[in-house]
Amino acid sequence: MTGTALRASAARSSLAQRYRDVRAHTEALVAPLSAEDCALQSMPDASPAKWHLAHTTWFFETFVIEPRVRGYRVFDPAYRVLFNSYYEAVGERHPRPERGMLSRPDLPTILAYRAHVDRAIGKCLEPARGDRAVAGLVELGINHEQQHQELLLTDILHLLSRNPLRPAYATPVSAAPRRPPRSPRWLRHAGGIAQIGHDGAGFAFDNETPRHRVLIETFEIAARPVSNGEYAAFIDDGGYRRPDCWLALGWETLRDRQWSAPLYWERHDGRWRAFTLRGMTELDPHAPVEHLSYFEADAYARWAGARLPTEFEWEAAMRDAMRGGAFGAGHAAGTASTSRGAGTLRSGDVWEWTSSAYAPYPGFRAAAGPIGEYNGKFMCNQYVLRGGSVATPAGHLRVTYRNFFAPEARWQFSGVRLARDVDPGTPRPSPIRGSRRPREDRSG
Amino acid sequence: MTGTALRASAARSSLAQRYRDVRAHTEALVAPLSAEDCALQSMPDASPAKWHLAHTTWFFETFVIEPRVRGYRVFDPAYRVLFNSYYEAVGERHPRPERGMLSRPDLPTILAYRAHVDRAIGKCLEPARGDRAVAGLVELGINHEQQHQELLLTDILHLLSRNPLRPAYATPVSAAPRRPPRSPRWLRHAGGIAQIGHDGAGFAFDNETPRHRVLIETFEIAARPVSNGEYAAFIDDGGYRRPDCWLALGWETLRDRQWSAPLYWERHDGRWRAFTLRGMTELDPHAPVEHLSYFEADAYARWAGARLPTEFEWEAAMRDAMRGGAFGAGHAAGTASTSRGAGTLRSGDVWEWTSSAYAPYPGFRAAAGPIGEYNGKFMCNQYVLRGGSVATPAGHLRVTYRNFFAPEARWQFSGVRLARDVDPGTPRPSPIRGSRRPREDRSG
Amino acid sequence: MTGTALRASAARSSLAQRYRDVRAHTEALVAPLSAEDCALQSMPDASPAKWHLAHTTWFFETFVIEPRVRGYRVFDPAYRVLFNSYYEAVGERHPRPERGMLSRPDLPTILAYRAHVDRAIGKCLEPARGDRAVAGLVELGINHEQQHQELLLTDILHLLSRNPLRPAYATPVSAAPRRPPRSPRWLRHAGGIAQIGHDGAGFAFDNETPRHRVLIETFEIAARPVSNGEYAAFIDDGGYRRPDCWLALGWETLRDRQWSAPLYWERHDGRWRAFTLRGMTELDPHAPVEHLSYFEADAYARWAGARLPTEFEWEAAMRDAMRGGAFGAGHAAGTASTSRGAGTLRSGDVWEWTSSAYAPYPGFRAAAGPIGEYNGKFMCNQYVLRGGSVATPAGHLRVTYRNFFAPEARWQFSGVRLARDVDPGTPRPSPIRGSRRPREDRSG
Amino acid sequence: MTGTALRASAARSSLAQRYRDVRAHTEALVAPLSAEDCALQSMPDASPAKWHLAHTTWFFETFVIEPRVRGYRVFDPAYRVLFNSYYEAVGERHPRPERGMLSRPDLPTILAYRAHVDRAIGKCLEPARGDRAVAGLVELGINHEQQHQELLLTDILHLLSRNPLRPAYATPVSAAPRRPPRSPRWLRHAGGIAQIGHDGAGFAFDNETPRHRVLIETFEIAARPVSNGEYAAFIDDGGYRRPDCWLALGWETLRDRQWSAPLYWERHDGRWRAFTLRGMTELDPHAPVEHLSYFEADAYARWAGARLPTEFEWEAAMRDAMRGGAFGAGHAAGTASTSRGAGTLRSGDVWEWTSSAYAPYPGFRAAAGPIGEYNGKFMCNQYVLRGGSVATPAGHLRVTYRNFFAPEARWQFSGVRLARDVDPGTPRPSPIRGSRRPREDRSG
Repeated sequence: MTGTALRASAARSSLAQRYRDVRAHTEALVAPLSAEDCALQSMPDASPAKWHLAHTTWFFETFVIEPRVRGYRVFDPAYRVLFNSYYEAVGERHPRPERGMLSRPDLPTILAYRAHVDRAIGKCLEPARGDRAVAGLVELGINHEQQHQELLLTDILHLLSRNPLRPAYATPVSAAPRRPPRSPRWLRHAGGIAQIGHDGAGFAFDNETPRHRVLIETFEIAARPVSNGEYAAFIDDGGYRRPDCWLALGWETLRDRQWSAPLYWERHDGRWRAFTLRGMTELDPHAPVEHLSYFEADAYARWAGARLPTEFEWEAAMRDAMRGGAFGAGHAAGTASTSRGAGTLRSGDVWEWTSSAYAPYPGFRAAAGPIGEYNGKFMCNQYVLRGGSVATPAGHLRVTYRNFFAPEARWQFSGVRLARDVDPGTPRPSPIRGSRRPREDRSG
Repeated sequence: MTGTALRASAARSSLAQRYRDVRAHTEALVAPLSAEDCALQSMPDASPAKWHLAHTTWFFETFVIEPRVRGYRVFDPAYRVLFNSYYEAVGERHPRPERGMLSRPDLPTILAYRAHVDRAIGKCLEPARGDRAVAGLVELGINHEQQHQELLLTDILHLLSRNPLRPAYATPVSAAPRRPPRSPRWLRHAGGIAQIGHDGAGFAFDNETPRHRVLIETFEIAARPVSNGEYAAFIDDGGYRRPDCWLALGWETLRDRQWSAPLYWERHDGRWRAFTLRGMTELDPHAPVEHLSYFEADAYARWAGARLPTEFEWEAAMRDAMRGGAFGAGHAAGTASTSRGAGTLRSGDVWEWTSSAYAPYPGFRAAAGPIGEYNGKFMCNQYVLRGGSVATPAGHLRVTYRNFFAPEARWQFSGVRLARDVDPGTPRPSPIRGSRRPREDRSG
Repeated sequence: MTGTALRASAARSSLAQRYRDVRAHTEALVAPLSAEDCALQSMPDASPAKWHLAHTTWFFETFVIEPRVRGYRVFDPAYRVLFNSYYEAVGERHPRPERGMLSRPDLPTILAYRAHVDRAIGKCLEPARGDRAVAGLVELGINHEQQHQELLLTDILHLLSRNPLRPAYATPVSAAPRRPPRSPRWLRHAGGIAQIGHDGAGFAFDNETPRHRVLIETFEIAARPVSNGEYAAFIDDGGYRRPDCWLALGWETLRDRQWSAPLYWERHDGRWRAFTLRGMTELDPHAPVEHLSYFEADAYARWAGARLPTEFEWEAAMRDAMRGGAFGAGHAAGTASTSRGAGTLRSGDVWEWTSSAYAPYPGFRAAAGPIGEYNGKFMCNQYVLRGGSVATPAGHLRVTYRNFFAPEARWQFSGVRLARDVDPGTPRPSPIRGSRRPREDRSG
Repeated sequence: MTGTALRASAARSSLAQRYRDVRAHTEALVAPLSAEDCALQSMPDASPAKWHLAHTTWFFETFVIEPRVRGYRVFDPAYRVLFNSYYEAVGERHPRPERGMLSRPDLPTILAYRAHVDRAIGKCLEPARGDRAVAGLVELGINHEQQHQELLLTDILHLLSRNPLRPAYATPVSAAPRRPPRSPRWLRHAGGIAQIGHDGAGFAFDNETPRHRVLIETFEIAARPVSNGEYAAFIDDGGYRRPDCWLALGWETLRDRQWSAPLYWERHDGRWRAFTLRGMTELDPHAPVEHLSYFEADAYARWAGARLPTEFEWEAAMRDAMRGGAFGAGHAAGTASTSRGAGTLRSGDVWEWTSSAYAPYPGFRAAAGPIGEYNGKFMCNQYVLRGGSVATPAGHLRVTYRNFFAPEARWQFSGVRLARDVDPGTPRPSPIRGSRRPREDRSG
């Protein structure tokens, strides 16, 4: 073996190991669930856990194994349709709102399907095979499965929330009481021409490319996302009853769906509680607010006299902060409170809505073939979220990562971070003060 | 013990035995099903099997045990809401369309709930207790559960039909080939003042009472329900494309839902097949047609130059036939073919739509208390079916039994029997001949 | 001319006169309306006044003139589709919910269309023509137009009610204050075998035939319909918040549509007002309650400890009363108060919901040809109303007349009359007393 | 008078003149319409012409007159609600989908309302009054009314299209046959940091501000919009049956609404015709394609191997072209064919979808008070169109003008212009050639 071949082989073996780890992690996520838990679908946007288990497997079977492994015996030909999510080029699909109609194949069968595909992937990744494209597709499949790990958790949370028994996904744990974080600070970014998007090292989805230049003006961004306590002040100030805070479409949605708080929040005896993967819990005022729609994030920002950052401002600020090592620290710690000082920009606790509509980067080219449907065709009427949440697989955090959802979506771990314009000549930013604006100011 | 007390005790012990038998039969019905099969809800009209298991138990707990058994420990207080079907007087109800959101309580828990209630009912029925009202309520609960046994099967069939894998509920069995029945014969009934409704001996639902007089004119009724083969001729004659055969509401429904055959029928290579509890099967042309809406039954009858019987005609004819022993014979044999001659009136193979809107009998009084909601409040926009199907518990067939569904409902085992007026002075009825009317006759 | 021919000619000339009168009356009804008033459609169930003007004309053109008048020049071939209501045999139809999309043809054009058809009908009815079928169809067309006269008024009332300006159709007139009527009395009918339906003399719709026998048990019926004041007592007693008063489908409808009073009722400062053709008016407590759905009529009756009459009871009672001359007196007087004594059975002030589902009479045969679609195909999920309202053309009242609407319909002039069973051996009926039942009685 | 005062007075008199001209033009637009035409509403997105007449008047009354003119007698207090479009700060609004329920006030009353307000505005603009804010608000109201002039035409076109009689708004005129334009040419723009947005001279809506810098890379843009003939080639190539051309949301919309061509297109005997303000017309293959949704514009561009321009590219290119005098030339000529050569960038014949989601410019501040609801609150799930159409008032064309609609909207005069990326080092652009890509290329 040449040195190059040796390195490729080592990379591949590492890839095989990552494949096994990620697949095992998915199955660990469903371990606390019954077959019934895994089969139900709580709304068209959500999928049964069993479907996630099967679809991620279908992805490897359809895009990696079938085109390459001679004599591969398909586990069940019907799955080609049943577990196709949205790939028109692959053919027919079982309708999304009917994913919860499938009591069969049952859970053990789906687990057998996973094992069947895992064996075949194992062969694809044997060192002797030198197919570079395979490695790329397996890498994509791994990242795809990691995305579904988070979706599986948000979908299960939604399903359990529909059950009046309020069952918990995981055993409640008593978290150590958090020390109140300092008041969030504004961090100033000087602007300029920023390089946005993935630069080619390591994996990225196609929608993170190509890297391109964006002109950014000077702005300020909050050091941490908005907390539950801060958001509760917005509610207390009548935030859900003041149309002047809301986009027209948001106000209409709020009225149609009778929103009066974030998804999963309930008020008992004047105190806020929230339904979580640990069941009903007291709301920690210092934890970042979760389960906001874009509309709510935007309304909060307007109420606070600020705005959402663009995804470009977010990426530029994080990239700068990373040079100081702050990025991802929050996630690593598993909490949202700031441990090392309010001046550090931190993220990774909650997805953060940006003001940027999800659109292709200049020069974007979707991949050839069915894989090209992965991201590009969804670039309409959705908004970009940046960061990452407690449900995001650790290795999945990335400064260029673009998550995206429709503006009314609330069942993700989605929150809000503030930004604001800077008038030229303004001195350095001061701490964010009481953001509540007096009611009489808002007559407009 | 006096003689009377002895007889009461014996009756009660027999009731206890019937209770056990019926409860065991329900559980036998779900034996071929997985926990996932039992949890899913395929449409708002249908309920998960698990819900049927629990609701029938809730009925005994709520109406028999709770008001009577001192110190009874409710299995789970949340069930009072979760498994209340529609009893406003009992209180809040989990919304019907969300019965399929309940992955918890899981199937083993529901079976434990059943056992818990069974033990308590056992005590209620101990010979020492002389509560006559208990016996009546337990009797009602038994009949209620038998109704749900049939619903459980129709609901499971509907669920499995939504699955592209076409799973069978029960192992396919090769039925012995049927001999073609003779052409159905018209049987003439002389009319007159008939006694309609339950006469007081044995159990009946309140909607079968009070017995009352109805004036019926001379009519003729077919000796057996319409067969698959006969119905297929209606389809072949363009029945689903001819508005003149249909009620206006039926035609609208047909167009909105794109009906072109009975529910579960599919045409492959020019041959009809149907999805059944045994999976996809060839259609037996001699078996009674099933899964018709009222609209289809009515349209078929109009096409055939006949009409549906009223429920009064049906009951009067069956009562007369019973004196000859024919009633229920079909069901007992488990087939729809006539074994002993076309002249015998037979039913029990399929529910038969009548032309009668579901309405209270003159002098009808709903029972006092919540039980009064059992039947009376549904007497609007539904039509009465008479007879019984292969899924109807054997002891449940009754000449006064009034089944009822909305005219668009098709997921029950519902078919059609013809009737027709008789002009005075007409000779005895002749055999039903080719019912197909030439297209040019129907210009109206 | 022979004597027979002379009589036929005289009858025809009388028919021609009635044709002209009825046509002129329709146009008089739209005289207070602007072109805009005549063009709008307030809901799919209602039609623009202009459409009524055109459709009734289309009826004569399509069913009388076109098949008979050689060389007749159709006014506009497009009208065959535009103004076909529901006759499948005639061909395509402009969709009902889009009748309000037709700003053209404009009102003057439609009036010209009417004149054009009137001229052609005139020729059909010339004494020289001896076509008996023509006379029958013109008679049908006249009665058809009279039905649309009432619909035109109910539809205009509904349209104006949607306008926040609350415009009046007609100038408000101050009605003379009514003297309180005596408490309504129960009138007893002995039952027996009644002859129901039209007996052949004079015009009737096909759904009133054939005359047939119905067995009726002894019953009692209220001498007059329920008044506004009596209905208000039901509301005050929480009638719209008590599910035990309502059919299940009615309760569901009430909740979905948030009903809390009859259509057009509004409470201002504790007093009821109603929107009428004269604009917003104080509610006269002695006038019959109007704009009830079947569900409300039925719920009121249940609350009052009574029930709705069947259409057979209604017809039998009215026929008996007519022998005493009472029937129609209310209408002739144009008021609902009883003038001659509470013991007289009176109707004609408001349509009265009966408990009878709209169904064909035994032996019913729809007419041949497209005209056969007039009534028969609507016999599903509708309920029969008897009587007649202030908007019913005077000559249109008839003891056998069967009006019918869906149970949720409220925009007609529809009210309620009570009936009740009689236990054998009960003495003569006493006056209807306070019908309010105490709340604690209704726990069932 | 000082010189400054003189100039202000002259400006105001000119403003008064423009006010009168614009108001008169609106009334001229409805001159061909009947009262019925003006009253109907064809869909919730569209408004009756009468409503446009009233709402534009309400705008002046509410925002200019009421706050300023002492003793002003409101024409009708109910109009405050009836004709408020969406201003939450003004108060309640008549629901948008019910604008077509208002037969009253009738058309003459609305014209009287206009005259009443015109008189009051006349006083506000008398030279003696020196209120600069008034001038700004009147200017806004004039531009507002000009926007509604175009909406009035698109809404009338939609209404007439719903009428099977296919009435024309205006008399058909035979247009001179067009000479085929040259093949469209790509024009290259060098990119760089562009100044985007209004610079302060003359009127602009708030959403065109503030002027700001945007970095643009080198790109090419087509000299003219896509023509009917070119779009028909897309249809012929199966464009509406190939999911790979479409955004996922677009494909879903196409299937739900069964789109197979632009709105108003119909194929007769293999030839395309279109419903226009002149009635049904032959399609001119050289005229720009109209009545596309964003989805169709985007799909066409993808099929053609190109893309939509961003609104920044569009503005930068037009601004450059204006220096050469080309901008608006098309509109002035009233045709879409190029008169002076394919190399000139021309627009103004049709609104052009850009790929830019409608979002606030950096530093955007909505105006204070209710007027602040004019634009800002709609910045979600809409896309920007640039240019202007044959229905756009002449003085309303502006290089910074941002029109915006939801991506599924098709009833505007909306078309498409192509753009494409430029690989560095590519020579000058060549003519756009046959854009049809062979089917086998598109397997992805």
